[in-house]
Amino acid sequence: MPRPRDRGILWPKPAVNPNRLSTPLASETEMPNTLRRRYRKKRARKSGLPPGALVGVGDALGPTQMTRTLWSGEALREDQVADLTDIGTPRPRDAVTWINVAHAHQAEVVRRLGEVYGLHPLVQEDILNHDQRPKVEDHGNCLFVVLKILGFNDEAHELTAEQLSLVLGPDYLLSFQEVEGGATLEPVRERLRAHHARTRQGRADQLAYAILDAVVDEYFVALEKLEDHVEDLENDLLSTSRAAALPIILQLKRQTLFLRHAVWPLREVVAELQRAGGTLVSDETRVYLRDLYDHVVQVMDMAEDLRETVAGLLDLYLSTLNLRLNEVMKVLTLFTAVFIPLTFCVGVYGMNFRHMPELDWWWAYPALWVLMVAVGGGMVAYFRHRRWL
Amino acid sequence: MPRPRDRGILWPKPAVNPNRLSTPLASETEMPNTLRRRYRKKRARKSGLPPGALVGVGDALGPTQMTRTLWSGEALREDQVADLTDIGTPRPRDAVTWINVAHAHQAEVVRRLGEVYGLHPLVQEDILNHDQRPKVEDHGNCLFVVLKILGFNDEAHELTAEQLSLVLGPDYLLSFQEVEGGATLEPVRERLRAHHARTRQGRADQLAYAILDAVVDEYFVALEKLEDHVEDLENDLLSTSRAAALPIILQLKRQTLFLRHAVWPLREVVAELQRAGGTLVSDETRVYLRDLYDHVVQVMDMAEDLRETVAGLLDLYLSTLNLRLNEVMKVLTLFTAVFIPLTFCVGVYGMNFRHMPELDWWWAYPALWVLMVAVGGGMVAYFRHRRWL
Amino acid sequence: MPRPRDRGILWPKPAVNPNRLSTPLASETEMPNTLRRRYRKKRARKSGLPPGALVGVGDALGPTQMTRTLWSGEALREDQVADLTDIGTPRPRDAVTWINVAHAHQAEVVRRLGEVYGLHPLVQEDILNHDQRPKVEDHGNCLFVVLKILGFNDEAHELTAEQLSLVLGPDYLLSFQEVEGGATLEPVRERLRAHHARTRQGRADQLAYAILDAVVDEYFVALEKLEDHVEDLENDLLSTSRAAALPIILQLKRQTLFLRHAVWPLREVVAELQRAGGTLVSDETRVYLRDLYDHVVQVMDMAEDLRETVAGLLDLYLSTLNLRLNEVMKVLTLFTAVFIPLTFCVGVYGMNFRHMPELDWWWAYPALWVLMVAVGGGMVAYFRHRRWL
Amino acid sequence: MPRPRDRGILWPKPAVNPNRLSTPLASETEMPNTLRRRYRKKRARKSGLPPGALVGVGDALGPTQMTRTLWSGEALREDQVADLTDIGTPRPRDAVTWINVAHAHQAEVVRRLGEVYGLHPLVQEDILNHDQRPKVEDHGNCLFVVLKILGFNDEAHELTAEQLSLVLGPDYLLSFQEVEGGATLEPVRERLRAHHARTRQGRADQLAYAILDAVVDEYFVALEKLEDHVEDLENDLLSTSRAAALPIILQLKRQTLFLRHAVWPLREVVAELQRAGGTLVSDETRVYLRDLYDHVVQVMDMAEDLRETVAGLLDLYLSTLNLRLNEVMKVLTLFTAVFIPLTFCVGVYGMNFRHMPELDWWWAYPALWVLMVAVGGGMVAYFRHRRWL
Amino acid sequence: MPRPRDRGILWPKPAVNPNRLSTPLASETEMPNTLRRRYRKKRARKSGLPPGALVGVGDALGPTQMTRTLWSGEALREDQVADLTDIGTPRPRDAVTWINVAHAHQAEVVRRLGEVYGLHPLVQEDILNHDQRPKVEDHGNCLFVVLKILGFNDEAHELTAEQLSLVLGPDYLLSFQEVEGGATLEPVRERLRAHHARTRQGRADQLAYAILDAVVDEYFVALEKLEDHVEDLENDLLSTSRAAALPIILQLKRQTLFLRHAVWPLREVVAELQRAGGTLVSDETRVYLRDLYDHVVQVMDMAEDLRETVAGLLDLYLSTLNLRLNEVMKVLTLFTAVFIPLTFCVGVYGMNFRHMPELDWWWAYPALWVLMVAVGGGMVAYFRHRRWL
Repeated sequence: MPRPRDRGILWPKPAVNPNRLSTPLASETEMPNTLRRRYRKKRARKSGLPPGALVGVGDALGPTQMTRTLWSGEALREDQVADLTDIGTPRPRDAVTWINVAHAHQAEVVRRLGEVYGLHPLVQEDILNHDQRPKVEDHGNCLFVVLKILGFNDEAHELTAEQLSLVLGPDYLLSFQEVEGGATLEPVRERLRAHHARTRQGRADQLAYAILDAVVDEYFVALEKLEDHVEDLENDLLSTSRAAALPIILQLKRQTLFLRHAVWPLREVVAELQRAGGTLVSDETRVYLRDLYDHVVQVMDMAEDLRETVAGLLDLYLSTLNLRLNEVMKVLTLFTAVFIPLTFCVGVYGMNFRHMPELDWWWAYPALWVLMVAVGGGMVAYFRHRRWL
Repeated sequence: MPRPRDRGILWPKPAVNPNRLSTPLASETEMPNTLRRRYRKKRARKSGLPPGALVGVGDALGPTQMTRTLWSGEALREDQVADLTDIGTPRPRDAVTWINVAHAHQAEVVRRLGEVYGLHPLVQEDILNHDQRPKVEDHGNCLFVVLKILGFNDEAHELTAEQLSLVLGPDYLLSFQEVEGGATLEPVRERLRAHHARTRQGRADQLAYAILDAVVDEYFVALEKLEDHVEDLENDLLSTSRAAALPIILQLKRQTLFLRHAVWPLREVVAELQRAGGTLVSDETRVYLRDLYDHVVQVMDMAEDLRETVAGLLDLYLSTLNLRLNEVMKVLTLFTAVFIPLTFCVGVYGMNFRHMPELDWWWAYPALWVLMVAVGGGMVAYFRHRRWL
Repeated sequence: MPRPRDRGILWPKPAVNPNRLSTPLASETEMPNTLRRRYRKKRARKSGLPPGALVGVGDALGPTQMTRTLWSGEALREDQVADLTDIGTPRPRDAVTWINVAHAHQAEVVRRLGEVYGLHPLVQEDILNHDQRPKVEDHGNCLFVVLKILGFNDEAHELTAEQLSLVLGPDYLLSFQEVEGGATLEPVRERLRAHHARTRQGRADQLAYAILDAVVDEYFVALEKLEDHVEDLENDLLSTSRAAALPIILQLKRQTLFLRHAVWPLREVVAELQRAGGTLVSDETRVYLRDLYDHVVQVMDMAEDLRETVAGLLDLYLSTLNLRLNEVMKVLTLFTAVFIPLTFCVGVYGMNFRHMPELDWWWAYPALWVLMVAVGGGMVAYFRHRRWL
Repeated sequence: MPRPRDRGILWPKPAVNPNRLSTPLASETEMPNTLRRRYRKKRARKSGLPPGALVGVGDALGPTQMTRTLWSGEALREDQVADLTDIGTPRPRDAVTWINVAHAHQAEVVRRLGEVYGLHPLVQEDILNHDQRPKVEDHGNCLFVVLKILGFNDEAHELTAEQLSLVLGPDYLLSFQEVEGGATLEPVRERLRAHHARTRQGRADQLAYAILDAVVDEYFVALEKLEDHVEDLENDLLSTSRAAALPIILQLKRQTLFLRHAVWPLREVVAELQRAGGTLVSDETRVYLRDLYDHVVQVMDMAEDLRETVAGLLDLYLSTLNLRLNEVMKVLTLFTAVFIPLTFCVGVYGMNFRHMPELDWWWAYPALWVLMVAVGGGMVAYFRHRRWL
Repeated sequence: MPRPRDRGILWPKPAVNPNRLSTPLASETEMPNTLRRRYRKKRARKSGLPPGALVGVGDALGPTQMTRTLWSGEALREDQVADLTDIGTPRPRDAVTWINVAHAHQAEVVRRLGEVYGLHPLVQEDILNHDQRPKVEDHGNCLFVVLKILGFNDEAHELTAEQLSLVLGPDYLLSFQEVEGGATLEPVRERLRAHHARTRQGRADQLAYAILDAVVDEYFVALEKLEDHVEDLENDLLSTSRAAALPIILQLKRQTLFLRHAVWPLREVVAELQRAGGTLVSDETRVYLRDLYDHVVQVMDMAEDLRETVAGLLDLYLSTLNLRLNEVMKVLTLFTAVFIPLTFCVGVYGMNFRHMPELDWWWAYPALWVLMVAVGGGMVAYFRHRRWL
């Protein structure tokens, strides 16, 4: 029977995406800078509590949803878990169980799953704390993996990140998503429904690998979109002087900093998974993990290239700005320089000396015009000759 | 019976916080730059003395205060130690003793504890020397841990640091604070008083872990405040040109340098604690230390991000300053450029040639005004067209 | 009998080189920037597919061509494989087989070879995915090597890259080229045809070494051409101010980034080949691999030098631009400074005071000219003396 | 009987300190730059000689002085060794011998000690060559340690360095100072004279540790003084624009480069001493060496901070210079901009048109003054409003 | 009997030094840039050839000269080898043979020595290819060492480099110089002629060490000269603005890049020699190699310092250039600012208003002069007061 607390699972999903890292392209003063604010609040809320205290500290306020998939040979059953007491029912022998928890921020759900599957209190705490670095921990009876699902918000031109925690046991896999990872896990679920897919024929470790592979594939998509964004900005900087580029560049710098913390530990995670796991990871799966490792290294290469490109953007911006300003100043200075001697000329014949013979010559005035045009034209020609203009 | 020297324990606490790293936001010439001065004085006082000489070299001038907590099963006793001879009383079997020394700068107190608990002379020296790098030393019968408690002075916008030394034995924990660490250790003490807390049920190593965890939690708070400060400064730099930003940036650079020395060795300390300790650290606690290790790595990530951000602040400051100056210079140069040809025009008709037909035309003067307005307006339009204005 | 699908092998080769990394020297806005676009499309096409899915993701649209070479002692036979079923024919004992696949983007060809030679599905996938990092994998029965063939497009002044995959078995070598590697493998084939060549006398590992050696030799040629290009650009920057240099420098930066990803893993590949391979690599060949390793390290040195030189190009460009602009501004400012006091002089005698005795002196006007020439000449002389001019 | 050569020991000490690294604060052209010159001369003198050739290559021209200290239990004897033959006298059993050689540049002295104590020819060469990197060598029967004693010349504001070589045997310690290390070793000698000092109770290894500790303590003093100097310079740069700062900054850069070579290998030396030494270093001393290791790491931190601060000085200098210049230029340009339209106004009424009605109005002249004051004042007000002034 | 080819050995030595790296101090456009050109040609010539093909690719066109030295106990014989067949004569038992080949670019000579001493084809190829990185290879029966002899061309102010290859066998040493290393090996030969020299008493490994030591000693000389050159340039940059400095700085950067490739692998070479060699290197020699290792580390320190100094030269150059230009601009702007209000003043009294009472006052004109002198002087005084002048 569902307890009152469980009804909270049906709370409506908030309209705004709470995982937006920040809002680039907006003015800096109004920039919500969500990445840092979110990070900060979480930690501040936790400080002073004993370690292992189960407090949901994520901002993901959508309704917690649990999906359970069981398969064994030909049979496969999928259902939504609405009642927490339902989890503890004995599993059929030889079957593999996958429980996916979306919007995993309710301490009660995690505690119940922890009881059933024997999870260490610290693992339960880490699942609820959505601010973990990617890592893998070997707890003997299970492997605990934390990683980030990266996305790219096409409108705000920014990376989005949500946490995915996996608990891999001998015949079960628990996955906890910070929000509902949407498209990322769907292909895996599709493949599982197909009879002859390799994912279906393997055990829980093959499923874990399939999820990791799907997540890393998403990295390529997100990073390629970010690359596009950076490249567009680069072209903008080369063609026009955008005064508003400075906050965007700062924002990109923060994103690459964040990227580094999300991607670099991932390599260690996959390498660790290959080594660790005892009987939890089969040799067959290890070959696939080696392939995944190669992909992660490629993602790191992309992230590193992005970091270098973004680091060069500020230099590029200031250079082009300088070039443009210099051009303006040079043209104006040349313009002034042409008029300076001409003004001197007309000044000379504005003098009131009594004895200035030129003043009485009738052709003096037109001659002076000719002279001045010649001087002005000569200077322009000289400047052109020296390639100053 | 308290000896006269022990009365010194009751000296009043000084009004100013002696641990302020420095005073940012003040003008550089008056900046006390406390971090370096303090560092320097300490060392200068020690030079030439034999190693192991017990001299209190901290600036913490508050009264030394000792708090003793004993617990065993259900029973728990807390008291203030006023008499040094009192320390040596035999401890009840199976009880765990925690002696916390605040304002640990009196050589006599440390020497007495050293005698009772058999501390190596170098350990005693290091406890009194409040300028240690974080480190852990395995002395066989005990583990000696040094670390820094970080805080953030909200008024002076600066990090504060005090040293915390722990000596972990089989059934005792000695902790020495440079000043009275205030809020940091209070939650640990609270949890100890609760009957069923894990900290209470464990041995001395659980208590040591709880203290380390509380200290690292404080790091998050302090670093998040520093991040806020840096971010505010960044926004200031983007919106207005603050000439006074240079000393603040220098000050922040020093703080990040200090941070590196405080945080980086901490990772080694926690890793070492996991490996070392023999029977002093139980396997149960080791699992918790692994969790602490993750936290420390996160702190390092934050500190590293801060370092990179602060390193970019000077570039940012100079860039915005340059942008703003360039804007001023460009406007003024354009302004000048508009008047230069006009001044030439009026100069022409200021000439005294006898034969200047224009001078006699009655419409020449208004026509010249029309011409000049046209030239001036045309130039402004051209500048706007070229996006120079 | 050739099946219909195989006729696709005869598709005409595209006129444009699909492996061009990018088009430098063109304006940035129109720059196709092929490297990134290509990279992106590939990955986007793959995302969501199960690992090991065989989809040709290269852009190399030329007809797939298979060349088979068998030799054993004196005998050597070369032929084009037109029928896929032909591959499975039993190989003569003691003979070494080399199958080279050019334009390796047809999944069917790779799958058939995979069946005959027992290749792991992930190896088959990697062969078709032309976006791998250089790597070596030991699959027990065979070694799988991926590397890049570098070239230099003399017209577009840019590096070209194609992927080469090698599968080294006990008595066979399979090589898969992204396009037809043209001149790179031809010398190896020539040497194989010669009776007494060392390559001919060895087994498959000697052939693999010969191919690797030929590829690395091509690196030297490509990098030396790129070095020439960079040096020409450097000389251009020193002699004239090319406003168009900025996009070219950006382009070169991207090429050096790419180079790093192509060259750095290569060292690991060759070192791994020396260590791994069990009986697949003979001791004799290992000595040659050590020599190859030295060559790769030299290539890395060249690539690293290039990277540093290119990194310095932007500084160099901005410096020379600044120097030149400064020269212009200085000359113009000096020019203006000379005329400023002269204009003041003529202004003085343009005043209309009734009592200005100088105005009535007949020699005042020529005297003023003498004075002005003296002042102007004196200033120029002073500027020259101060080395400002 | 003292041989004639030994009389050289009594040569007077030169007035100038030969160990000054360089003379900052002087103009660059006259800077003696002693560090590099000295370094160079030494090496040039040695080139071409066989390895192990004993040639005194130091510049330390003071008289070589040998001090011998023997102690055993209660007894302690100190004397000056005036005769080289005196060294070979048999040492009392159980006694520890310490021979300190100041101004160690006479080959004869080193050769004689080498014979008596069985030193390898290369050790003898290294003792005489005062240009060694800090290092430790285990020669089985003895440990050979080289390190630098750092000082700070308060007048010239520069680091001074002299070499100290130690040879640690089972019951003897030989120490060779480049010059007379003055205050550095005196505290050690004092402690040795005290009956109950730990240094006195230990063997030769305790003495070696005491000397190393005294040397590292001196590092703190020297580095703190250099830090003061750098900080003073930083404050100077922030408050005034010192044109002479460039050579001083260059000089400081060289000092930090030198510092790195003096300090970084030191860590290896102390770590090596802890590991090596067999029976030469007792376990008791090893504990103390661990403490010394911590000190060396702190010195490295200080040196690293100094390096970063000095590296930032040039940026700081150029920034403040730029800020100041920009301020000047801006004020002047604004000043000019105010007068430009005023000059245009007066130019207008300097024209000689016959039909200029304003010229005849009697109030036109004062009205123009009012207008011009209004325009000028308005512009200044506008500039202030825009915060340009 | 000398064959015709051997007569080539007597070809005259070319007048120009073919090892000059480049010609600094010349204008960039005419800079031969020998280092890169040479490097490139060599490799281009080799590409496409099978590995191990013996082609002389050096530019060293002097006559190949072979010198043979045999010694055994008291006896020592030196002669020039004019006939290649002469090499194969059986060597006396217990004798050590040293064959030195200068201008080692004739394939025939290397092939013959290879046959006699059993050298691997790749070793023979490497000896002829004068573009190797420093390395050591253990071929079981012999050690193959490649290193660079560095020199400094005092006229062209540039490093010169030639390759030296050593083959160390149990009782022989073969040395191949790219050109005739002149002064470098002469001291070794001299010492060999002396009866009691350690080099003479040792075996071939002592000779190899003596040669390595002589080569590294030359490094000190070359680097010290380069340091002098850099320091002279630094002083030049501080005192005058040399527009020609840019190509020289670029040239120095290339030299430091080259230096890194020549010096850094050397450390590995010497460390490898200490470890490797089995019976080829005696324990006695290993002690000397450790000393050599220290020297190499010192050379690396020097090279690293040079690199940092040269890297800072461009900044220094631009800074001083900027300072000087700023000074000029500031003076001129101040100069202009003084005249601007004066020109306004004379403009005022150039107006033609009928009612300007001042025009009629007889003392107005001199009073205006007094006013203008006062204003001008006041401004100069103000600028001086503000320290702008």
